[in-house]
Amino acid sequence: MSELTIWTYDWVPEGPRGFVRDLRLRWACEEAGFGYAVRTVPFEGRGSDHLARQPFGQVPFLSDGELVLFESGAGLLHLARKSEKLMPRDPAGEAETLQWTIAALNSIEMVSVPWWFLEVSGVQDNKLTGWLESRLDHLERVLAEREWLAAGCFTVADLLMADVLRIGKVRAFRDHPATATYVTRITERPAFKKAHADQMAHFAAADAMRA
Amino acid sequence: MSELTIWTYDWVPEGPRGFVRDLRLRWACEEAGFGYAVRTVPFEGRGSDHLARQPFGQVPFLSDGELVLFESGAGLLHLARKSEKLMPRDPAGEAETLQWTIAALNSIEMVSVPWWFLEVSGVQDNKLTGWLESRLDHLERVLAEREWLAAGCFTVADLLMADVLRIGKVRAFRDHPATATYVTRITERPAFKKAHADQMAHFAAADAMRA
Repeated sequence: MSELTIWTYDWVPEGPRGFVRDLRLRWACEEAGFGYAVRTVPFEGRGSDHLARQPFGQVPFLSDGELVLFESGAGLLHLARKSEKLMPRDPAGEAETLQWTIAALNSIEMVSVPWWFLEVSGVQDNKLTGWLESRLDHLERVLAEREWLAAGCFTVADLLMADVLRIGKVRAFRDHPATATYVTRITERPAFKKAHADQMAHFAAADAMRA
Repeated sequence: MSELTIWTYDWVPEGPRGFVRDLRLRWACEEAGFGYAVRTVPFEGRGSDHLARQPFGQVPFLSDGELVLFESGAGLLHLARKSEKLMPRDPAGEAETLQWTIAALNSIEMVSVPWWFLEVSGVQDNKLTGWLESRLDHLERVLAEREWLAAGCFTVADLLMADVLRIGKVRAFRDHPATATYVTRITERPAFKKAHADQMAHFAAADAMRA
């Protein structure tokens, strides 16, 4: 195993703490039992060094030996190919994991994040509400019938879907009982709790440095 | 090579023709030289049969022998692993292709599709405009410096990014000359032209059947 490094910001304001997407990569490493380092780029003043590795000026990015990957979804799929704890090795299990990972990014998050953005912008008539409702209704039907999204076991697709859905406003959106139970169950995993606590501690330490 | 089948709708109205996402899978198969069949599900009246294979009631989905994958992004990554014409085989080339494929889905399309949705909904003050502008400005900087997104050659990441960007309103959004040149160049490829013409012919034939 080459050395894994998860890159995140050196500091962020209170609001996004617990939701910065380095958490997804920490969580996956914890599930798989991979050792990893955490390194930082400045939150304020995102320089050409940062943009060379993350062209949209975001975090996380992941380095794995000589490789560097940005996009949390890409980092997750990269890690998943290294551990059966994140993705089964059989072709059907891999295909199911892949499709549900992409569904989390492109069928749910593509609607839920812009919807949330409009909500927090204070728009009166959020035009994305019907679309989000339809997507979550479809997902609810799936989750009412099974425990895991793919391959009959926990995979990186569950990790990502639960992370997408756990944003407060999205989680509280209408009544989706199977989805709510699913998100609770997935985020009760010890690997999530450790990743979350570690991210919170990381930013709290940054406050202490600033003080 | 097991048999590939691309599933799309039996018919769609004029508006989406040329943009239904089966085009992405057709295009990838044409680039790779894969034979494939096209089969259909009803556009009107999406039954449990359809939802069992595409839980959000969309198209396309891809069958590859016994495997069935929904999500065009998942289908593209699945096909990419079968052909070096879509993704290089070296780890760095694979990682770059993966990250830019996910970037097209989750950094660009996650903003551009909801932005476009609000535009066509006729909202006066589209709150997603600044976000889209920022993402496209970052992408412009990348495309001003290189011909291909990943690995120094055409990959499935270029196919997907060009498809995401070619929607009229997105393409016409502000002045991004390198991006405009890129989209034109990628969509001039014979494989795109064939996939586009075949989709248009498919729906035209459906009109003739209905008439």
